Amino acid sequence: MKAARLYEYDPHLKVQLRIEDVPEPRITAPNEVIVRVGAAGLCRTDLHIIEGVWRSILDPDGKLLPYIPGHENAGWVEEVGSAVTSVKPGDAVICHPLRTCGVCLACRQGEDMYCERGVFPGLNADGGFAEYLLTNERALVKLPEGVVPADVAPLADAGLTAYRAAKRAAKLLPPGTFCVIIGVGGLGHIALQVLRALSSARIIAVDISEAARQLARDLGADEVLAGGPDLVAEVRERTKGGAHVVLDFVGEAGVEQQGWQMLRRGGTHIIIGYGGKLEVPTVQMIFGEMTLTGSLVGNYMELVELMDLNARGLVKVYAQRYRLDQINQAIDDFKNRRYIGRAVILL
Amino acid sequence: MKAARLYEYDPHLKVQLRIEDVPEPRITAPNEVIVRVGAAGLCRTDLHIIEGVWRSILDPDGKLLPYIPGHENAGWVEEVGSAVTSVKPGDAVICHPLRTCGVCLACRQGEDMYCERGVFPGLNADGGFAEYLLTNERALVKLPEGVVPADVAPLADAGLTAYRAAKRAAKLLPPGTFCVIIGVGGLGHIALQVLRALSSARIIAVDISEAARQLARDLGADEVLAGGPDLVAEVRERTKGGAHVVLDFVGEAGVEQQGWQMLRRGGTHIIIGYGGKLEVPTVQMIFGEMTLTGSLVGNYMELVELMDLNARGLVKVYAQRYRLDQINQAIDDFKNRRYIGRAVILL
Amino acid sequence: MKAARLYEYDPHLKVQLRIEDVPEPRITAPNEVIVRVGAAGLCRTDLHIIEGVWRSILDPDGKLLPYIPGHENAGWVEEVGSAVTSVKPGDAVICHPLRTCGVCLACRQGEDMYCERGVFPGLNADGGFAEYLLTNERALVKLPEGVVPADVAPLADAGLTAYRAAKRAAKLLPPGTFCVIIGVGGLGHIALQVLRALSSARIIAVDISEAARQLARDLGADEVLAGGPDLVAEVRERTKGGAHVVLDFVGEAGVEQQGWQMLRRGGTHIIIGYGGKLEVPTVQMIFGEMTLTGSLVGNYMELVELMDLNARGLVKVYAQRYRLDQINQAIDDFKNRRYIGRAVILL
Amino acid sequence: MKAARLYEYDPHLKVQLRIEDVPEPRITAPNEVIVRVGAAGLCRTDLHIIEGVWRSILDPDGKLLPYIPGHENAGWVEEVGSAVTSVKPGDAVICHPLRTCGVCLACRQGEDMYCERGVFPGLNADGGFAEYLLTNERALVKLPEGVVPADVAPLADAGLTAYRAAKRAAKLLPPGTFCVIIGVGGLGHIALQVLRALSSARIIAVDISEAARQLARDLGADEVLAGGPDLVAEVRERTKGGAHVVLDFVGEAGVEQQGWQMLRRGGTHIIIGYGGKLEVPTVQMIFGEMTLTGSLVGNYMELVELMDLNARGLVKVYAQRYRLDQINQAIDDFKNRRYIGRAVILL
Repeated sequence: MKAARLYEYDPHLKVQLRIEDVPEPRITAPNEVIVRVGAAGLCRTDLHIIEGVWRSILDPDGKLLPYIPGHENAGWVEEVGSAVTSVKPGDAVICHPLRTCGVCLACRQGEDMYCERGVFPGLNADGGFAEYLLTNERALVKLPEGVVPADVAPLADAGLTAYRAAKRAAKLLPPGTFCVIIGVGGLGHIALQVLRALSSARIIAVDISEAARQLARDLGADEVLAGGPDLVAEVRERTKGGAHVVLDFVGEAGVEQQGWQMLRRGGTHIIIGYGGKLEVPTVQMIFGEMTLTGSLVGNYMELVELMDLNARGLVKVYAQRYRLDQINQAIDDFKNRRYIGRAVILL
Repeated sequence: MKAARLYEYDPHLKVQLRIEDVPEPRITAPNEVIVRVGAAGLCRTDLHIIEGVWRSILDPDGKLLPYIPGHENAGWVEEVGSAVTSVKPGDAVICHPLRTCGVCLACRQGEDMYCERGVFPGLNADGGFAEYLLTNERALVKLPEGVVPADVAPLADAGLTAYRAAKRAAKLLPPGTFCVIIGVGGLGHIALQVLRALSSARIIAVDISEAARQLARDLGADEVLAGGPDLVAEVRERTKGGAHVVLDFVGEAGVEQQGWQMLRRGGTHIIIGYGGKLEVPTVQMIFGEMTLTGSLVGNYMELVELMDLNARGLVKVYAQRYRLDQINQAIDDFKNRRYIGRAVILL
Repeated sequence: MKAARLYEYDPHLKVQLRIEDVPEPRITAPNEVIVRVGAAGLCRTDLHIIEGVWRSILDPDGKLLPYIPGHENAGWVEEVGSAVTSVKPGDAVICHPLRTCGVCLACRQGEDMYCERGVFPGLNADGGFAEYLLTNERALVKLPEGVVPADVAPLADAGLTAYRAAKRAAKLLPPGTFCVIIGVGGLGHIALQVLRALSSARIIAVDISEAARQLARDLGADEVLAGGPDLVAEVRERTKGGAHVVLDFVGEAGVEQQGWQMLRRGGTHIIIGYGGKLEVPTVQMIFGEMTLTGSLVGNYMELVELMDLNARGLVKVYAQRYRLDQINQAIDDFKNRRYIGRAVILL
Repeated sequence: MKAARLYEYDPHLKVQLRIEDVPEPRITAPNEVIVRVGAAGLCRTDLHIIEGVWRSILDPDGKLLPYIPGHENAGWVEEVGSAVTSVKPGDAVICHPLRTCGVCLACRQGEDMYCERGVFPGLNADGGFAEYLLTNERALVKLPEGVVPADVAPLADAGLTAYRAAKRAAKLLPPGTFCVIIGVGGLGHIALQVLRALSSARIIAVDISEAARQLARDLGADEVLAGGPDLVAEVRERTKGGAHVVLDFVGEAGVEQQGWQMLRRGGTHIIIGYGGKLEVPTVQMIFGEMTLTGSLVGNYMELVELMDLNARGLVKVYAQRYRLDQINQAIDDFKNRRYIGRAVILL
């Protein structure tokens, strides 16, 4: 089958994925499923993987390469293992990023991301920048009639990550409260729509790009700001004392320090972007009774819920499309911010 | 009346409170109450006030001194304002630290500490190191028959602060989970008892003092540790992967950095002690899905609940007693760790 | 001042309120407030009061009459007691139905409806079908610039009751779930809008009146049904196994038995309407793991939140307007279902 | 293997189970497990099954008999299917009552009892009154070192059912609240211990048997009552206004009506016992803002948590032991209340 593979890490992102013919994956356990990939989203984490940022965690023995990235996948069931009952060949599906065991305590509590035996195709196993993908039954959510893989693939990871964080925010946001969304990119523009669907909080969206701010306005943000050194003061003024929740999709470049500084007492800073470092005096944690909390992708039920919002037209992905043989162009465009929303590779 | 007053700040804590005769407080509003103080706890915050740590916040105009510290008070109602209906002269009471308005949105939600018009006797107004204290009706919790102010005064602030944090911890600690309590002093020894009463989590208590560790054992800690550079590794091993919750009553001297490092995925670091600084890479916030959160004193209902635990014999204060004229000795003993538990000034 | 007073109970509702001149209320306590009434909603409970249904509870000694009904009030502050700080004469306000003490444990927890010393103007004291109303500071929510009492008065009770129930429902309704609203009248049409604002659940609205069903469609119900003996089967089919939550604004005439029968396992039947009787075999409670729960008006914070939804244009009252001297006509129209939504008496 | 089988239903419970030799169960799917039964608890539901109460639900086609009851099982793993990884032959285990699929939405949320494809050995398939039992990997909780099946078997169902209800109660019971436990039998005596471990609520235990009341006292009930027509009044007086939570393990004989009548406003009646019928005027649901809710067995995580309480010595089963060939005697003793706590059949 055709696939895009990574052969070496490069901190400067100059290396290219190679489009080549590789053997198709095969089923070896009763609960496994082969999915014919329809579309696969391109994620900032893919860039970090190429840069070697994750090398020590995902590839400690140096045996991963060459491998196929792509952890944001949707397509059609091609073949199922002997114990699979809930899907059949031909079903259109979106893939939860993790193949989970269903037996460990984390799985029993519904927290798929904590599965003790989880495999993450596209991170530590071959992923979806290829015609076929090996996953398992527990990873699959069936698409409703009329929903096409190309329209929803980025919901598998970008969307799911945004959903988990935004759902958690919504629970803290009764009418009359303020939520700041920092970064209206591939994740942030989904979070904004989720928050609109699940709460009536006032939303202040922040992005340095005017195109992203325009998207935020179109999606229903109450206010948009451009960020910068005055951001904390601006938010404090517009929220009359500070935000109740901050959703931080940047998490670096000093933005992570602005997040908690713009909270009101008892507020919550949810961190989804990464790269920077929080530095908070404990006395401020206490006086502000602040909560700082990380959010990691999402569980299966959250993906089911997100797909329902999509089916009802409440959450849409804004994406730029590329063919598999254009994947290196897509990476370059991402690096240079030549599109807003998300990039999707069509197979 | 007799009172201990502070006349100047001193970073080296060499200054003494002056025991002197001052005019008694007077009622000027219909909901105010005069309490004859029975006992007042001595708090690390009192030392910080004397050192001038709070000067810019509590005394920005430099007009506070001379004033009477003491924010952890219990006694008997002496006189009530015209609108007071729930207490009468002679009632034994413990005082919530804040005089709140009952009208602002914070008060309407039961979050007394966030009251927009709150006054904090002993911090920004005359406190309880005196024969009489001015507070208001909403601050008072009646003591049950047979409970004496001298036995419970430290529950007003040290106890309440420990209770709010430990109650929050208990909600995160179903059977089979682990909680680490760092610091078994005036607050930590109460938190340990509260956790015992409200959960069946395994408790690992940490303190550098053997006397405090012995107290922790006596109060039912499952394990005790002495802290130090290996603490994170020790906790990770004994909890088979990390603590579910850490209650940090130290919050400085590097301990604040150990707290979140000993969490398992999805764990919560509750910060009550202060002085240090958290420094956490955002990528670790996300991978660990950690929550770092501050806790500030507690609300009125929490004080009511704590007093019920005390009435049932489930939470007791371990305290060293001093007369008002020994208050400078008490401060010196505290500074030099000459007692465990709490010091109480008897009036 | 002009007021409408009730002089005798009449189970057949043939008695008329008398429009007459009565003395204005006077302030006798420091936290009291006189409100010049702008508008007062007419509630089914007013009809029940006239019928004598509440006689034994509200008027056990037979001393209440003659009195002024009207418990759903908005207007302008006319005069304030000496301790009042948060409002001043001229402020436009909506009145929480209860005058609460702010000191009892219920008030301290924010549950105003459970106040031990609560007074309910329009039920057990003179109400708002009059030019002036006596209430207290804790009952008042200021209206934002541009909001007029006549447009919002029914939010004080009908709206608040619908809000509390619908907010509770929304917490049980993640994306993909179904909620049935039975009865799209004065309360139900608000609940529908609240649910739209706070969740993305699929809403099935049920009403025997086509005009009410049309209003439900206009307000965004996903489906509307006319009720009747097949309702349970219809809901079970359309929800593929039963509703997750039922909001029952009827509570009588057999509808209260349909509510829990249309739930799926683990579902919740929230009862707001009254008059009938639940009869449920315990074995069905257990097999269905059903929850049946009553909802009573709402607390102050809930009114604040609802007013924010109104200010943002997310919740509007559909009302028919009458002058005070038309109040008996309004009662007659209500009895004979001559309007949809709510009736408002303008002062 | 030796097994006790039911050959016919008998409303008068005069029929006997037949002890006979039957073929051992065999593994036919990769996730199945054969357990050598060590002990199996006897449950009131077993009596109801024999009486034919469940006939229409469990045996609609009349093809179930002869079959082996026994749904409360613990023992040792004998053989595992090819996909099983978390247990191995020889492991001591307790069996969650349901064999679940791990794929349906209920399983994904951790609510095992709602599994769409669940099989319930001892109810609708051969159970544990036999030397060997067929179940699957997801049903098994490993016993800690030193814990013996005979000591814990009743925790699998009686204990689990009590735990789920009591854990839910504990969340509603901060210090200072009252919980009534009606029925201190096989389930109630576990619930009492769970509540002691997870809360500090005041517990009023009710049972018509003096032996059961004595057990309640020994296990730490604050008060014990004998029940009867004055129970509601007695509870209202001792709780100063009504219980916050009632755990009803009887659910019939009029007790189900007493449960909700002894609640205070906002209280919760949790129904675990069955047979009777709730009859509640909707007006009382609303005025009391009562919650009536059923509880059904429990999920896998709840069983894990309960086993931890047992391992820590916080929850013990009080049981009478019988050999398999004495099972009909055990049934007769149960019927005639000749023991307190639970009966366990040793294999």
